[in-house]
Amino acid sequence: MDILIINPNTSIDFTNRIDFIAKSYANPGTNVKTLNPQTGPGSIEGMYDAMLSAPGILDIFLRNHSKFDAFVMASYGDHPMISALREITHKPVIGIAEASMQVACQLGYRFSIVTSGARWVPLLEESVVKYGLSDRCSSIRSIHLPVWELESGSQIDVIQEITNVAMLAIKEDKADVICLGSGGMARFHKLIEEKLCVPVVDGVIAGLKMAESIVQMGLSTSKQSLYATPKKRPLQRLPEDYSSPNDNQEPGIAILK
Amino acid sequence: MDILIINPNTSIDFTNRIDFIAKSYANPGTNVKTLNPQTGPGSIEGMYDAMLSAPGILDIFLRNHSKFDAFVMASYGDHPMISALREITHKPVIGIAEASMQVACQLGYRFSIVTSGARWVPLLEESVVKYGLSDRCSSIRSIHLPVWELESGSQIDVIQEITNVAMLAIKEDKADVICLGSGGMARFHKLIEEKLCVPVVDGVIAGLKMAESIVQMGLSTSKQSLYATPKKRPLQRLPEDYSSPNDNQEPGIAILK
Amino acid sequence: MDILIINPNTSIDFTNRIDFIAKSYANPGTNVKTLNPQTGPGSIEGMYDAMLSAPGILDIFLRNHSKFDAFVMASYGDHPMISALREITHKPVIGIAEASMQVACQLGYRFSIVTSGARWVPLLEESVVKYGLSDRCSSIRSIHLPVWELESGSQIDVIQEITNVAMLAIKEDKADVICLGSGGMARFHKLIEEKLCVPVVDGVIAGLKMAESIVQMGLSTSKQSLYATPKKRPLQRLPEDYSSPNDNQEPGIAILK
Amino acid sequence: MDILIINPNTSIDFTNRIDFIAKSYANPGTNVKTLNPQTGPGSIEGMYDAMLSAPGILDIFLRNHSKFDAFVMASYGDHPMISALREITHKPVIGIAEASMQVACQLGYRFSIVTSGARWVPLLEESVVKYGLSDRCSSIRSIHLPVWELESGSQIDVIQEITNVAMLAIKEDKADVICLGSGGMARFHKLIEEKLCVPVVDGVIAGLKMAESIVQMGLSTSKQSLYATPKKRPLQRLPEDYSSPNDNQEPGIAILK
Amino acid sequence: MDILIINPNTSIDFTNRIDFIAKSYANPGTNVKTLNPQTGPGSIEGMYDAMLSAPGILDIFLRNHSKFDAFVMASYGDHPMISALREITHKPVIGIAEASMQVACQLGYRFSIVTSGARWVPLLEESVVKYGLSDRCSSIRSIHLPVWELESGSQIDVIQEITNVAMLAIKEDKADVICLGSGGMARFHKLIEEKLCVPVVDGVIAGLKMAESIVQMGLSTSKQSLYATPKKRPLQRLPEDYSSPNDNQEPGIAILK
Amino acid sequence: MDILIINPNTSIDFTNRIDFIAKSYANPGTNVKTLNPQTGPGSIEGMYDAMLSAPGILDIFLRNHSKFDAFVMASYGDHPMISALREITHKPVIGIAEASMQVACQLGYRFSIVTSGARWVPLLEESVVKYGLSDRCSSIRSIHLPVWELESGSQIDVIQEITNVAMLAIKEDKADVICLGSGGMARFHKLIEEKLCVPVVDGVIAGLKMAESIVQMGLSTSKQSLYATPKKRPLQRLPEDYSSPNDNQEPGIAILK
Repeated sequence: MDILIINPNTSIDFTNRIDFIAKSYANPGTNVKTLNPQTGPGSIEGMYDAMLSAPGILDIFLRNHSKFDAFVMASYGDHPMISALREITHKPVIGIAEASMQVACQLGYRFSIVTSGARWVPLLEESVVKYGLSDRCSSIRSIHLPVWELESGSQIDVIQEITNVAMLAIKEDKADVICLGSGGMARFHKLIEEKLCVPVVDGVIAGLKMAESIVQMGLSTSKQSLYATPKKRPLQRLPEDYSSPNDNQEPGIAILK
Repeated sequence: MDILIINPNTSIDFTNRIDFIAKSYANPGTNVKTLNPQTGPGSIEGMYDAMLSAPGILDIFLRNHSKFDAFVMASYGDHPMISALREITHKPVIGIAEASMQVACQLGYRFSIVTSGARWVPLLEESVVKYGLSDRCSSIRSIHLPVWELESGSQIDVIQEITNVAMLAIKEDKADVICLGSGGMARFHKLIEEKLCVPVVDGVIAGLKMAESIVQMGLSTSKQSLYATPKKRPLQRLPEDYSSPNDNQEPGIAILK
Repeated sequence: MDILIINPNTSIDFTNRIDFIAKSYANPGTNVKTLNPQTGPGSIEGMYDAMLSAPGILDIFLRNHSKFDAFVMASYGDHPMISALREITHKPVIGIAEASMQVACQLGYRFSIVTSGARWVPLLEESVVKYGLSDRCSSIRSIHLPVWELESGSQIDVIQEITNVAMLAIKEDKADVICLGSGGMARFHKLIEEKLCVPVVDGVIAGLKMAESIVQMGLSTSKQSLYATPKKRPLQRLPEDYSSPNDNQEPGIAILK
Repeated sequence: MDILIINPNTSIDFTNRIDFIAKSYANPGTNVKTLNPQTGPGSIEGMYDAMLSAPGILDIFLRNHSKFDAFVMASYGDHPMISALREITHKPVIGIAEASMQVACQLGYRFSIVTSGARWVPLLEESVVKYGLSDRCSSIRSIHLPVWELESGSQIDVIQEITNVAMLAIKEDKADVICLGSGGMARFHKLIEEKLCVPVVDGVIAGLKMAESIVQMGLSTSKQSLYATPKKRPLQRLPEDYSSPNDNQEPGIAILK
Repeated sequence: MDILIINPNTSIDFTNRIDFIAKSYANPGTNVKTLNPQTGPGSIEGMYDAMLSAPGILDIFLRNHSKFDAFVMASYGDHPMISALREITHKPVIGIAEASMQVACQLGYRFSIVTSGARWVPLLEESVVKYGLSDRCSSIRSIHLPVWELESGSQIDVIQEITNVAMLAIKEDKADVICLGSGGMARFHKLIEEKLCVPVVDGVIAGLKMAESIVQMGLSTSKQSLYATPKKRPLQRLPEDYSSPNDNQEPGIAILK
Repeated sequence: MDILIINPNTSIDFTNRIDFIAKSYANPGTNVKTLNPQTGPGSIEGMYDAMLSAPGILDIFLRNHSKFDAFVMASYGDHPMISALREITHKPVIGIAEASMQVACQLGYRFSIVTSGARWVPLLEESVVKYGLSDRCSSIRSIHLPVWELESGSQIDVIQEITNVAMLAIKEDKADVICLGSGGMARFHKLIEEKLCVPVVDGVIAGLKMAESIVQMGLSTSKQSLYATPKKRPLQRLPEDYSSPNDNQEPGIAILK
C-alpha cells in the first residue's frame, strides 16, 4: 500500500520529521512518502495561510494521485483542501485532527488539544463543533508559539512548554487524553507522555493508521453528496484538465484522464 | 461610503446582475462596485471550486482594499476566503449567507434555504451549524440546477422551480421565511415572494445592508483571536508583500504598506 | 421611512437618551421617534417587570401602529411583547438583543454580553439559547447595577465598571466582541470601545439599522406559523378591537380596522 | 396542603373541568382550588393572548397568595407569568408542560405532544428547547382546533381527532408516550389511552402531582438568580404594593406585607 | 400503593437509612419497602461495580415484582438496570437521578450536583447529556469521598464537606438548586439546606414522590420501542424463566408466568 | 500483537463468522482470537440481554486478559461492559459501533446505521448522542429482524433486506455512508456495497483495525477519570480477586495479581 502524506507548509525540516515519524509507525507493507508544496507559507498559522498553501497542495495532489492509495493531510485543523480533494478522488483523504480525536475518544471520556499559536484555538473549536465532538473535548489550549517556532526554538523548551500546558488541561479542564494539535509537534508525543499520567495522541500517526485501516478495509470516499465529483463547467485561465472530470466508476482521480 | 461586492466566480453576467440588484437597494450615499476574479471557475459548485477561485479573489482584494470601506463576499455559503480576508483587514468583510439568515431570524420562527446544485445542501448544513442556527433552520432544499445554469437556462423556468421548491419547504418543513441560497438567484426574490405567502430574503441585498449598517456604526473586524493579523513568517515563491503585515493600529489592510 | 422605538420602561431620561443616540445613527431619510409607556416600572429588572410593562407597551403600539413602518423594542433581552406584537402586525418588530448579537457574529468568533443587574445573566442566557447562538457567546457578565442606577449613578463610574467587566470577558472568556446588554447603556459604546481592543456593539443602534434594512428590503413579518394573525375568540372586559383581527393582505396591524 | 390551580383564560367551563380532574387525582390531604382571571381572552391561542391574560392572572395571584402552599399554572406552554410569579414568591409555581414532559421521560424514550391550534407547535418547540428536552421529544403535532373549540365542539369528535393525531405521532415519529398539550384537553386522557398502545400524560394532573411532591419535600423556589426577589424601583401608575418587596426570609410572597 | 426501593449495593446500613428517609416522606397510603442485593459491591463506585451489582438486583426484582406497584432504583446515576428492568415490566421503574433533576428544574434556572467519589463526575455528566439537561446543569462536583465512606466517616465532617462543595457550586458555577448526587447522602438534605441559601433536593425522596405520582396517575412504562418486552430467544445456562416473556397485555412482569 | 474479540452472545455460529471476517482483515502480525461467553442470551436484543450477558463476558475477560494486547467488544451499541472493562485494565477496549462511525466520518458527510431488531433504533440513538455524532448521523433504520434470525434466516433474503433498507437511508435520509449496525451482519458488507453506490462499513473490521492501530501507537486506556482503577471496597459473595485492584503502573489488568 502506498500512502502520501502532504505537509501543507513549505518547510523541508517539517516534511522530514513528519516522514520519519510516519515511517516509524507504518505497517511493514506500507510505503509512506511525505511531500510539501513548492509555494506557500513556511507554516500554516491560520485560514489566510491555508488559502495561500492551497495551489501548491493541489499541484502535489494532481501530480501524485495515481501513484498512491490514500492521502493524509498533515495539517492539524480543518484545512479546506481536505474537503476539496475529497471531491475529486474516490481514494481516502484523511484529516489528522479528526483522526486523532477519534483515537482519543476510544481511550477516555474527554480529550484536550494542545496547539501551537493562539489563533488555532478558535480555529480548532470550529473544527471540533464540525466533527460533532464538543461534548468530548474538555479544552483547547495554546502554547503561544507559532508553528514555525516549534522547529526553530529549543526542542527541550518546546517539549517542556507543551507538557506544562497539557498538565493544566488535565488538572483544570479534566482532560483524560491529550491530542497534540499541530503537525509540527510530531516526534514529541512519547517524551511528553512519559511526563504525564495520560495517553498522548500524535495526529500524523493517527492519520496514517486511519489511512492504512481504510485502505485495508477496501473503502473509498463516498461520492453521494458533499464529495460528489464536480460536473463540467467553464473555467477561466486554469489548466483545461481541472474542468473535465471523467465519470468512470473505478476509484481514481476524477478530473484526470 | 464605498462597498466592494466580490462575485467569487468569473461570470461577468453574474457580476452585472449582482451589481444591478445591489445598486437598486443601496443607500443614497453608498457607492457600490462589484468585481469578479480573472481566474477560476465560472460558478462555484463546491469546496473544490471555492479553492480554485481563491487566488483570483485575493488579487481583487489586495488591489482594491484601500478604496473601500467594507467588503461583501457574494458567495452563498461559508467560502473560506471570508475568514481568510478578515485576518488581513480591520474593515468589515460580510458573508451573504449569514447575513440573510440573520434577517430571516427577525421575521419568523424558522427559515428554509433554497439553493442551486445538490452539493450545496450539505455545504450549507455545515454553515448553518457553524453559525449556530440549526434550531432556526427548517430545511435546506436544492433545485438540482448547478449555479451556472441559473444564468443560461430559461429565467421563467428557474423562477418556477425555485417557487415550487420553496412551496415544499413551507408546507412540509414548516418554513416561515425563505432564503435564496445562491448569489445567482439575485433579482428573483420579489417575483418569487409574490407567488408565496412568506417573506423571501435575497442574500446579496442582506449582505449589502449589513455592510452599510456596520460601516455606519463605525465598527470593524475584531483582531482579538480568530481574525488577528498574521505574524511575519517565511513564504516561498509568493509576492513579498504577502508576508509582511504591518501592525499599525488604524483600520486598514495589515499586509500592505 | 418612519421607525418607532419603544423604550419599555417609564423613564423619560432613558427615552431621551435612546432617542438621541438613535437619531445620531439614523439614515438621512429615516424619521425616528422614541416613546415610553405611561404605566409600568421605571426600569425592567426581570420578567415580572416585563409583564408589568406590557399593557403600557401595547397601548403605545396600538395608538401609533399606522404611522410607522417598523418598530424597535429597546429592551435588551427577549421581552415577551416582541413576539406578541409580531402576531398582530405585518410590519417588522425588531428586538435589540438579537440584532446586536447578529452584528457581533459578523465581526468576530465569539461575543460577550455585559449587562446591568445580576438577574439579566440567566435571562440573557435563555435568550441566547433561543436565538441559537450558544456556541458564539463566550459569556454574559453583569456589572451588578440595576438598570435604573445606570441613569442615576455617576456616568464616569458606570462607564469604568462596564469597561472593567468587558476587559474580564476579553481576557478570561476570550470574547472578540462586546455587546452592551442594556438599553440603558446607550451612548457609552464609543467611550468604552476606546478603552478596549475590540469592537463594542450598542443594541439600540443595531436594532435601528436592522429595522431600516428590513424596511428598505421591503420585507415583513411572516404570518405563517409563530406570528400568524390571531383568530377571533371571546375576550372578557377588554376593548372589542383586541378581538377582531381583519385578514386583509396588506401589511398593517391585523387587529385594527 | 392547599394548591391553587390558575386557569389562565376566562372560560368558566374550562375552570370547572380542570378543577374536577385535579380534585379526582389529588391526595386525600390536598385541598385544590381552581380560579380563572376576570379579564382576558377566553382561550390562550398564542403569546399575544398570554400577554392579555397577564394582569388578570397577577390579580388572582396577589389576592390568593397567602392562602396556598403552591401554584399550578394550567397553561400548556411557557406562559411568561410562570417565570414572573416565581420572582415574587418563595412558594413553588409549577408549569404543567414541563411537568408532563418530565413524567413522560420516566416512561419512555421519546414523547410527542398533541396540541390544539397550529400556533402552539412553534411555541411548544421553543419551550422544549428551553427545557432542554429536544432530544427526548419526537414531535409536536396540532389537531388544528383552537383551544376554545375543544370546549364548544363535539367531545367525541375532538377525542377522535386527538387519537388520530397521536396515532400518527406513534407510527411516524416513533413516540413512546403522548403528552396532551393543552389545558383544554384535561379529562380526555384515559379515553384516549384506551385507544392507543402507549401512556398518555395529562398536564394538569402532572402539574398537580409535582406541586404536591414539592410541598411534601419542603422545597421552595430558589431566590438565587433567575427568580430572585425584585429590588425596590420606581413604578408609574401601578399600586404601590407592586414596588415594595419585603425581604423577609420566610417563604411567602415577597411583594406583600 | 406498594413501592419497592432497591438499594443497589449490599450495605444494610445504607438500606436502613434509605428506608427511613423514604418512609418519612411517603404518602399515608403508601407502603414502602427497601431491599438490597445479597451479592455485589458494598458501594457502587462506577460502571464496573454497577455490573457486579446487576445479578443481585435482578434477583430482588424477579422475586418481588408481583407484590409492588412501582420500583425506585436508589442509584444516583444511570444504572443500566433501570433500562433493563423497564424492558421486562409494565410497571414504572424510576431513576432517582433523573427524578431529582426534574424537581430542580421546577425550582430554579440551573442545578449543580454534589456527588461522592471523583469517578461519578464523568458518569453523571454522561447521564445529564442523556437526560437532555446539559443546559440546565451548572456543574457536577465531587467531595472526593467514595460512597461507602459516606457511611463510615464522621457524619459531621461529611455534611460539612458537602456543604462546602455546594457553596462553591453556588458561588462559582451559579447553581440555583443543589442535587445531592448519591443515594448515600440520603438524610443530610435538610441539614445542608439550612446552611445554604438554595433548595437542596434528595434523590431518594424525589424518586419516591415521582413513583407515587405515576402510580396515582395510572401510568405505566411504554412498551413501544426502547422498553418493549423482549422476544423469545435462546438462553444458555440461565433459568428458563428468563427467556420466556409472556405477551399478555395486563401490566405485570413480562418474563414471569 | 494479540487481539481478543468478545462476541457477547452465546452463539458459536456468530463467533465463528466474526472470527473468520476478523482474521481476513487482520494485519499479518496480528493474532486474532474470538470467544463468546458460556452463559447468557443467544443474541443481545436490548439492555436486558446485555445485562444477562455481563457475567459471562467478565469471566472471559478475567481468564484471558494477560494473553492479549487489546480487546474488541463485538456488540454494536454501547454495551455497558465496554465502560466497565476499561475501568479494570490499562489495555485498549474498543467498541465496534463507535469505531465504525469514526471510519464513516472520514468518508462522507453523514452516515446511516442499518440495524437488526427495532429496539436497537432507540438504543443506538442513545449511543450516537453519547458519542457526540448526532449531527453526522442521518438516520438509524431497522430491518425488523432480531439479531439471532440474521443467523437462522435465508442469507440471501437478509442481505436483500439490508440492501433495501440501506437504499431508503441513502435516498430519503441522505446518507453518504452505511454502517452495518449489528455484529451479526459481519461478512455481508462487500455483497451489500456492490449493490449500493456508497461505502459500507462493517463494525467488527472497524473495531479490529482501531485496536491494531492503538496498540501500534503504544497507547493505553486513560486512568484519569471515567476509567480510573476501582479502589478497594467491600464485596459480598464475589471472588476476592474482584475487590483487590493492584495499583502498579504497568499496563495490565488492575484487579489481578
